[in-house]
Amino acid sequence: MTGVGFLGTGIMGGPMATRLAAAGFPVAAWNRSREKAAALEGVTVAPTARAAVARAGVVVCMLSSGEACDAVLLGPDGAVAAMTPGATLIVMSSIPVGTARAQAAACAARDISYVDAPVSGGERGAKEGTLAIMVGGDAAVVAALGPVFAPLGRATHVGPVGSGQLAKLANQLIVASSICAVAEALLLAERGGADPAQVREALMGGFADSTVLRQHGLRMVEGNFVPGGPAKYQIKDTGTALALASSLGLTLPVAEQVDHLFRDLVANGGGDLDHSAALVELRRRNAVPTKINA
Amino acid sequence: MTGVGFLGTGIMGGPMATRLAAAGFPVAAWNRSREKAAALEGVTVAPTARAAVARAGVVVCMLSSGEACDAVLLGPDGAVAAMTPGATLIVMSSIPVGTARAQAAACAARDISYVDAPVSGGERGAKEGTLAIMVGGDAAVVAALGPVFAPLGRATHVGPVGSGQLAKLANQLIVASSICAVAEALLLAERGGADPAQVREALMGGFADSTVLRQHGLRMVEGNFVPGGPAKYQIKDTGTALALASSLGLTLPVAEQVDHLFRDLVANGGGDLDHSAALVELRRRNAVPTKINA
Repeated sequence: MTGVGFLGTGIMGGPMATRLAAAGFPVAAWNRSREKAAALEGVTVAPTARAAVARAGVVVCMLSSGEACDAVLLGPDGAVAAMTPGATLIVMSSIPVGTARAQAAACAARDISYVDAPVSGGERGAKEGTLAIMVGGDAAVVAALGPVFAPLGRATHVGPVGSGQLAKLANQLIVASSICAVAEALLLAERGGADPAQVREALMGGFADSTVLRQHGLRMVEGNFVPGGPAKYQIKDTGTALALASSLGLTLPVAEQVDHLFRDLVANGGGDLDHSAALVELRRRNAVPTKINA
Repeated sequence: MTGVGFLGTGIMGGPMATRLAAAGFPVAAWNRSREKAAALEGVTVAPTARAAVARAGVVVCMLSSGEACDAVLLGPDGAVAAMTPGATLIVMSSIPVGTARAQAAACAARDISYVDAPVSGGERGAKEGTLAIMVGGDAAVVAALGPVFAPLGRATHVGPVGSGQLAKLANQLIVASSICAVAEALLLAERGGADPAQVREALMGGFADSTVLRQHGLRMVEGNFVPGGPAKYQIKDTGTALALASSLGLTLPVAEQVDHLFRDLVANGGGDLDHSAALVELRRRNAVPTKINA
């Protein structure tokens, strides 16, 4: 099987690299703190990013941000310059759409195929190989990557380069908005005299059912705001989505309110609480006390 | 088994009455247009609402609105006055919380137990007995109604009288807000260059997954806005929820934007389109043309 170079073996990248190795791919992994790569079963540790990618047919990049990816991938000393022409780079980090397109252009200049493929499903999805993988790129290139994506989760081709990142933003917007919608609905029910835990229970299975109602809704009714996903990262996502919308001439009225709510939550000291703490901010605005069990 | 009086055998009530009869309850049904009740298998048609309820241990009311329920149930010539003391009235219509509480008080004066139990799941849920039933009332009364709810769907006791209606409002708020969230996210992805149908596909199974993404999202990407649930009814629900929120001193920022969006949709002629046509209004506001296949 084709060799895989893996850049960034953190909370997400670590289990993903392990799963690729378990599926039979020879994996050479590089991580800034080497011990995280060294701990991975079946994976060869590379001393540098360039060494990890040099003989790989496919390179997976799972670093923490667009800046981190650019720093490791680009420039004359970057990993892309060390890749074999004809190989493919898959950036699975969540990065701005424009950053993905610029990376693709840099790759094209060296005859490297580029695919953006951010994921949803968290650490658990990475460990269990059940990630939702949103893939942007040339259809033939994406199709050829099927065996690489298979051990990681369910890959869907959503359009040309950058589209994976657009889908991820759509995902984050829906999650953030749904959290606020559930928070508002449960607060209204509670304030009116119903039991919010039972209301959540009643709504499961109906038209209002969602992963957010089940997971974040449970945190809300339990008052458990240990992250999960900290609210301070949520505002990065909603901010990126709104900036992109603005650049495309789009006004998204619900997303704007959602962004305000999360920004206020962070400004009021809730940045390290889970996303579901949108309810905490909503209570604060409405002067309804919160019992936090966290 | 205890006799059931059934008031209102329309799109929802008809199949519900049939299912109760099939489960072995003697059902006496009344409907304003008698032929709808007469068409139901296993159900006895009553000439008046009072005749339908006179010998029933349990009365189910599934009329179209709070006003319609009040008109049939209350007053010296109403159905409640004809019920046997000790019997139970279940109002399964979606009505204002205050209306439910007033009906409960009128029932208590005649030693009739009262439960509000609105439903979610639509015509299909009514036919298949898979409704989500949100039940408000005294715990002992609700517990005794288990066999009546069982053929209709999954009943959850959510609090005292009125709580069923609060849960239903929570349900409607979450559905309406989720529709707008999905519309905004898909529009952003499309405007950025991704394929919205594939984006929806990619998001299914992840944190953004929901019944709304699956059902209303499909309508959006197909441009199919035949209702389903017409937008003009959506604004009744969001309006009721916001009025209640206001009376409780609550500000719900997302719900307000959602209500505006649906009101604008109706004002711009989309009242008879499906709820998912929130996307049509969002496109209009942003001057993005809509292809409607409906």
